[in-house]
Amino acid sequence: MLYDRQSDKWREECGIFGVFARQENVALNTYWGLYALQHRGQESAGIAVTDGNVMDVQRGMGLVNEVFRHSLPDMPAHIAIGHVRYSTTGSSLLRNTQPLLVNYSGGQISLAHNGNLTNAHEIREGLEQRGSVFQTSMDSEVLVNLIARSSRQTIEEKIVDTLTNIHGAYCLVIMTENKLIGVRDPHGFRPLCLGRLGDGWVLSSESCALDTVGAEFVRDIEPGEMVSIDDKGVASRQFVEPGRLAGCVFEYIYFARPDSVIDGQSVYQARFNMGRTLARESGFKADIVISVPDSGTTAALGYSQESGIPFAEGLMKNRYIGRTFIQPEQKKRDMGVRIKLNAVTSVVKGKSVIMVDDSIVRGTTSGKIVRMLKEAGAKAVHMCVSSPPIGFPCYYGIDISVRKELIAASKRVEEIREFIGADSLHYLSLAGLHASIGNIPQKTLCNACFNCDYPAEIPCERDCANNKFLFEPKSK
Amino acid sequence: MLYDRQSDKWREECGIFGVFARQENVALNTYWGLYALQHRGQESAGIAVTDGNVMDVQRGMGLVNEVFRHSLPDMPAHIAIGHVRYSTTGSSLLRNTQPLLVNYSGGQISLAHNGNLTNAHEIREGLEQRGSVFQTSMDSEVLVNLIARSSRQTIEEKIVDTLTNIHGAYCLVIMTENKLIGVRDPHGFRPLCLGRLGDGWVLSSESCALDTVGAEFVRDIEPGEMVSIDDKGVASRQFVEPGRLAGCVFEYIYFARPDSVIDGQSVYQARFNMGRTLARESGFKADIVISVPDSGTTAALGYSQESGIPFAEGLMKNRYIGRTFIQPEQKKRDMGVRIKLNAVTSVVKGKSVIMVDDSIVRGTTSGKIVRMLKEAGAKAVHMCVSSPPIGFPCYYGIDISVRKELIAASKRVEEIREFIGADSLHYLSLAGLHASIGNIPQKTLCNACFNCDYPAEIPCERDCANNKFLFEPKSK
Amino acid sequence: MLYDRQSDKWREECGIFGVFARQENVALNTYWGLYALQHRGQESAGIAVTDGNVMDVQRGMGLVNEVFRHSLPDMPAHIAIGHVRYSTTGSSLLRNTQPLLVNYSGGQISLAHNGNLTNAHEIREGLEQRGSVFQTSMDSEVLVNLIARSSRQTIEEKIVDTLTNIHGAYCLVIMTENKLIGVRDPHGFRPLCLGRLGDGWVLSSESCALDTVGAEFVRDIEPGEMVSIDDKGVASRQFVEPGRLAGCVFEYIYFARPDSVIDGQSVYQARFNMGRTLARESGFKADIVISVPDSGTTAALGYSQESGIPFAEGLMKNRYIGRTFIQPEQKKRDMGVRIKLNAVTSVVKGKSVIMVDDSIVRGTTSGKIVRMLKEAGAKAVHMCVSSPPIGFPCYYGIDISVRKELIAASKRVEEIREFIGADSLHYLSLAGLHASIGNIPQKTLCNACFNCDYPAEIPCERDCANNKFLFEPKSK
Amino acid sequence: MLYDRQSDKWREECGIFGVFARQENVALNTYWGLYALQHRGQESAGIAVTDGNVMDVQRGMGLVNEVFRHSLPDMPAHIAIGHVRYSTTGSSLLRNTQPLLVNYSGGQISLAHNGNLTNAHEIREGLEQRGSVFQTSMDSEVLVNLIARSSRQTIEEKIVDTLTNIHGAYCLVIMTENKLIGVRDPHGFRPLCLGRLGDGWVLSSESCALDTVGAEFVRDIEPGEMVSIDDKGVASRQFVEPGRLAGCVFEYIYFARPDSVIDGQSVYQARFNMGRTLARESGFKADIVISVPDSGTTAALGYSQESGIPFAEGLMKNRYIGRTFIQPEQKKRDMGVRIKLNAVTSVVKGKSVIMVDDSIVRGTTSGKIVRMLKEAGAKAVHMCVSSPPIGFPCYYGIDISVRKELIAASKRVEEIREFIGADSLHYLSLAGLHASIGNIPQKTLCNACFNCDYPAEIPCERDCANNKFLFEPKSK
Repeated sequence: MLYDRQSDKWREECGIFGVFARQENVALNTYWGLYALQHRGQESAGIAVTDGNVMDVQRGMGLVNEVFRHSLPDMPAHIAIGHVRYSTTGSSLLRNTQPLLVNYSGGQISLAHNGNLTNAHEIREGLEQRGSVFQTSMDSEVLVNLIARSSRQTIEEKIVDTLTNIHGAYCLVIMTENKLIGVRDPHGFRPLCLGRLGDGWVLSSESCALDTVGAEFVRDIEPGEMVSIDDKGVASRQFVEPGRLAGCVFEYIYFARPDSVIDGQSVYQARFNMGRTLARESGFKADIVISVPDSGTTAALGYSQESGIPFAEGLMKNRYIGRTFIQPEQKKRDMGVRIKLNAVTSVVKGKSVIMVDDSIVRGTTSGKIVRMLKEAGAKAVHMCVSSPPIGFPCYYGIDISVRKELIAASKRVEEIREFIGADSLHYLSLAGLHASIGNIPQKTLCNACFNCDYPAEIPCERDCANNKFLFEPKSK
Repeated sequence: MLYDRQSDKWREECGIFGVFARQENVALNTYWGLYALQHRGQESAGIAVTDGNVMDVQRGMGLVNEVFRHSLPDMPAHIAIGHVRYSTTGSSLLRNTQPLLVNYSGGQISLAHNGNLTNAHEIREGLEQRGSVFQTSMDSEVLVNLIARSSRQTIEEKIVDTLTNIHGAYCLVIMTENKLIGVRDPHGFRPLCLGRLGDGWVLSSESCALDTVGAEFVRDIEPGEMVSIDDKGVASRQFVEPGRLAGCVFEYIYFARPDSVIDGQSVYQARFNMGRTLARESGFKADIVISVPDSGTTAALGYSQESGIPFAEGLMKNRYIGRTFIQPEQKKRDMGVRIKLNAVTSVVKGKSVIMVDDSIVRGTTSGKIVRMLKEAGAKAVHMCVSSPPIGFPCYYGIDISVRKELIAASKRVEEIREFIGADSLHYLSLAGLHASIGNIPQKTLCNACFNCDYPAEIPCERDCANNKFLFEPKSK
Repeated sequence: MLYDRQSDKWREECGIFGVFARQENVALNTYWGLYALQHRGQESAGIAVTDGNVMDVQRGMGLVNEVFRHSLPDMPAHIAIGHVRYSTTGSSLLRNTQPLLVNYSGGQISLAHNGNLTNAHEIREGLEQRGSVFQTSMDSEVLVNLIARSSRQTIEEKIVDTLTNIHGAYCLVIMTENKLIGVRDPHGFRPLCLGRLGDGWVLSSESCALDTVGAEFVRDIEPGEMVSIDDKGVASRQFVEPGRLAGCVFEYIYFARPDSVIDGQSVYQARFNMGRTLARESGFKADIVISVPDSGTTAALGYSQESGIPFAEGLMKNRYIGRTFIQPEQKKRDMGVRIKLNAVTSVVKGKSVIMVDDSIVRGTTSGKIVRMLKEAGAKAVHMCVSSPPIGFPCYYGIDISVRKELIAASKRVEEIREFIGADSLHYLSLAGLHASIGNIPQKTLCNACFNCDYPAEIPCERDCANNKFLFEPKSK
Repeated sequence: MLYDRQSDKWREECGIFGVFARQENVALNTYWGLYALQHRGQESAGIAVTDGNVMDVQRGMGLVNEVFRHSLPDMPAHIAIGHVRYSTTGSSLLRNTQPLLVNYSGGQISLAHNGNLTNAHEIREGLEQRGSVFQTSMDSEVLVNLIARSSRQTIEEKIVDTLTNIHGAYCLVIMTENKLIGVRDPHGFRPLCLGRLGDGWVLSSESCALDTVGAEFVRDIEPGEMVSIDDKGVASRQFVEPGRLAGCVFEYIYFARPDSVIDGQSVYQARFNMGRTLARESGFKADIVISVPDSGTTAALGYSQESGIPFAEGLMKNRYIGRTFIQPEQKKRDMGVRIKLNAVTSVVKGKSVIMVDDSIVRGTTSGKIVRMLKEAGAKAVHMCVSSPPIGFPCYYGIDISVRKELIAASKRVEEIREFIGADSLHYLSLAGLHASIGNIPQKTLCNACFNCDYPAEIPCERDCANNKFLFEPKSK
């Protein structure tokens, strides 16, 4: 996952989707599927299709409805895969759009990836030593090179051969001329599920996209499972024993859409329970419970129900936040929060308020929101966060540089409370978090950013130098 | 107001904003102000500015951040006005963007208008007889022509002279080389308020835009009031005695942002009260209360509080609904609701549900949502609408052609319930609606679309022929 | 006409085109007609159409194939008019695109104008006094207002009524719901011709556009003539006695395409003859004759034929000069000529060269080209200009401010020669110019920019103050 | 080279440019260089830059001034390379833009290629067998893979190692973090030259681009030569013995700009001589010589001079031919020639005309032009072609499928004359062509498309099956 400076949140990086269907417009279904997964990535989008012979791909920068405003890949096709990617800043990102589409000795292959590989850099160096060239800065390019180099016979075996050497987080949808393949890493870091669409099949990061295209949810892909879909149906194999299960807990806290169900756990119910647990743990009393919309709302409703304190919409969100702003003046930066959120004075004035948000990364935005509420007349703002303090970076994401900005890495809760200007501050305990995600055994989640318990090898030799304090006691 | 077929809602047509400030970047403030008013119109946007000598205007099709993606009017300026307009379909709409900017005998004038004039057509014909030409199909062009033809001396007098002959709904922000003028019609159909921005002044359709630019709310402009702002400050005059007051009740039901306060009534509180009243009126019992997001949420919270039935998010909305879709197949149309909304199965499954929405126009969308909830396992869906049945068209809007599609014009409530497939259906009573908007005397609101009690002359002689059944008993 | 600083040339400002045809796609024919007239204006383009009831117009900034890249006005139609406009710089020019389309008391009217009115400002002030408003800065808006205000009965009479009060240059194509009307001013400043397209009719600024759409040239519209085309055919009237005939001599020198025939004179032959006359007048001897492409080429060929000195392509022009350049550095400006033109060393090295260009306005570009030729090894550069020195501004254009930059207004020929660094310099004599345009009587051309003999009233009272030295002796 | 159906011409496919300069804006110089090479490719453009550490590339579809309308790669840099590519039709061509930019074991490398490799397919298959993947359909991707796999030490040795295995046509500019390298294949199929820009160096497909950026021509890169440019200057090596020299004769006939000098031969002089030779060979008599502009003009001038028959501009070309047309109707296709060219009636009417064009591929366009001239009144049209009949496809291009459409492959000259409707038809003899390109020894040119004498291995085993008649006698 990535850090989004503007909203002061972790962000999911990607969403993936795939369709195998003889009776459907697979490109169009992929379009709508990506549309439903848009919250997982707004930087770029792409769709690749095949008719069994030719493959084509259309990729571009922007939202799904911008990239495909004038056209979709318009050849007849019975397989399609798609990808959305999170918005970061930087130039020449056009190169880094997915799905990748390559020719190799076995034909054509297209691949879309959600996740981050922890040993991509080493493998890439090894591949370069053996003569490979890389045209993008994406981990995923390592995967297609490994697949292409595998000496195994079938595409499935080549993929298994490849993944044997790969560490980190990955869900993949892969398309050959006649197969749609879905893979989930042995830790199950990222979600992937299977759906039935008429006579065909769908793979999707989240079940909400199945609903959107009218597909029926069949099941989650298991950690370490590969499904291979062709005209004969769905063949499954456990390509590797599941490792220590480690579903990213942030999918439940913030990333996924509440109407998705991941690994048997309704995201909505998890968030609602987090709010209930928060209410029990914090014991805060106040006139109303409000949320930082939209992500904090479900937990706030749980808090309200558990505590009996009424929920109200104390903050309104501008529904037309666009991707691109003119930046004529520095003033814009100061307006950062005000252009997105506004306090509802009639709701908060004279009230003591419990404000529920899902997480705090650097704490800058939280401080502004607290100030906004106080200016609108809130008597007191008691902040509840539906996740524990984030003290450690995500190594299955990229942005290690955020390490030193994590407010909880260097400040105690009381200091953070002071920093953001709240009257009280309570973080959900790790135990409380786990209890809230009740359908998922605690030990099958990755909570490393809370407790530094990384479920798999981390790229220690590469980063320890700069993060000595972090890794000396912990490198595994 | 207009009818939006896609969402089956009335829609507000326009938002207006103006700034007079020597120490501020007035174009940038107008940009952010329009940004906050974006919900009032997504078709086009425009900003006009002046430095006291030259006027310039930049207008275009699209959202505020699209029209001004690369630039704002970049001359130094101390007055600016802006306009956003609702998205309709049709070609060559570029002509119909605002603010209008014209030269006339008195210099330059720029004007932005929210509302609809009921006698624009007649006056336009009269003006044409006297030699005027019209380059757009906007009512507002009539206004600038009348102002230009007025024989009065000052701009304020010219405007008053003009408005004497005008019937219908209008809030205006008008800019001359050295003045910013705001006007609200004597019925007060549309909102307009005044704010203080540093040493300068702001006019805005809604108070939420004042918050966004950091301006302090001063007061509403009164029905029949004109404020004229220049370096000497704000001069007010009651240019006409207030008529029968008739603030559009739909601003409270649906149009305005909940964080706005209109004529002393918090929109949020009004909606919340509507929900409470609905609960009392309907007496529905169920497991949960849900809303059709986002507009039904505040009322649903009120329903929940009054009834004690827990509120839950039973429907999730895709936050990335874009303006433009590819339309490759008819299938898209069938997907209409699914791409916007999805039922949260874990919330509604096995539950009896009270679903709160703000209004029903044709009823097509409501039926699809009810079906979606049932497919997700809802045992029963009791629909509550936070407004009375809409039986009559809005003559202060345009789309008279919708008349025959108003489901409540031809069907009784029980028939409507059957049509949409709900288990129960309750509309808020008109009395209940008025009670909910408690700070506003009932008789000062326009409820004509509910009770055919048009507060002002309607263009009877023009439309009666086609709508005989409607106007014969009622034309006034 | 306008001054184009980048190329140091006068430029034509507009091209107009109209079609009345029941059996043709009139919008498409207008598209191709404008395409052929693109050299007359590259800033903006527009097409208006009517089916007898509704009128629609599509206008935009850019070349014809940019403005209509995705669509043409797509209603069925049997009349269309179109307009291209010259590229100037400045903001908010979108307002100033044509055709204008207005509603007035008589219905709808659309108008496209080539020319400049010398009393537009006065009339506009008068119209403003009488209550008209103006939304553009185009002369043409005055015309539609006058037509709309005319008390005459028919559209033809209204137009005549209007033109009675108008001074200056105008060719117009005007469209009503059922007529296509073409008008040429009594001086015949700008060209306009009539063609036959199947069973229909075409009006065009130049005959080359008739060729492009496959229409047959019928005749020129006469100065002071109006043709009114409807289903009954072409009705002509001499709406005013021709004034002093004054066809713009620059149409022959530079503006029109050589494949056009204007008022019976082939543009190609005129330019060729100018070159022959130049040869006789100058008597220059040299190894080769070259041209400044493309506009100087035809005259250079005439020079070559008359003198017997071989013509060669000594300067190559980049065929991909685009409208828009990045402007990252000032360096770009220095590259001005080099990016457009390059000397062909193998042609000019060691040679004495006669270089033919059509005109010199400020002389800056000519100097750069001479330098380029010398750097490529030319022994001597004898410059021949196929027009007399430009000492006076064009009052039937706009850019009076260029007055002080006309090199020939303040410098004698020998000084100019020195300024541009040529070894010799000869301007075509006025008599020689007239002799070259042999089919047109000398006294029927406007040569005012050469000899200050303005054929019609000029806006003296307005500009004399600043240009005292020019107008005192000469105002008429 | 490629076949352009619209103009019925062979087309050059690419232009390349590179700069190494510490004191210059290398990206901007590359921009202007590509601008001057735009005639070599209008489909896409790209510029890659490096500052010694980081490399960046910006690529896009369209003309140079479209791709870089808003920005150039904006990092500080001292090396840049650029590429323009010819416009073909088809989807997803964005993938096939250059320069390529890859990471490999030795660091980063960027490469731009002009030419076609005849064994790219085989090598690509071999590379795929060894594990390489390919993301584009460009030959050039084979080159970067071979370089990356080379076991040699230096980049220069790696390149040499690579090229040892490559057959076909290639000029390359290659950029590493600290070097700019230029390579020309041992046959010298395509041009490449070296220039001095201040203290730095420039490589360019044609010398005209050196003139444009103000660089001084130093020399041509020799067939089989590699130049390696860094801070120490230019190091040259003959990396392979020149093969049978085979400069593409079409560079002189049509591709290159006349103001370029290639391998010591002025393109202008060559074309002029072709015209003179044509005059001697054909012996046609007529009233005037005209050209099909622009490419036939220089030869027509030579014809005129040799024959003493005056040259005239009998055909005018629309200077605003854009890349993209709306295609609303089939009518457009019929307008194909008319929208580009128009006969100048005053020039050709009643005249017998010698029309000079550079080449005939299918003959369709020639026929339309002859018809146009006759309709304009030409008494007779004698067509002269400044190249021999094209009977054989270019294997150093791509479009083998054109083979069967070459009119001269199946028709004798007299039949072709009849097909195009000319009164006479003369093709330049091969000997005459060679004599015209006098500075270049005949045997050092590739004339395979005229005489099937392919200078290097052709992909026989792949195509012979379908082109049996061609290759049986000739395969080598």
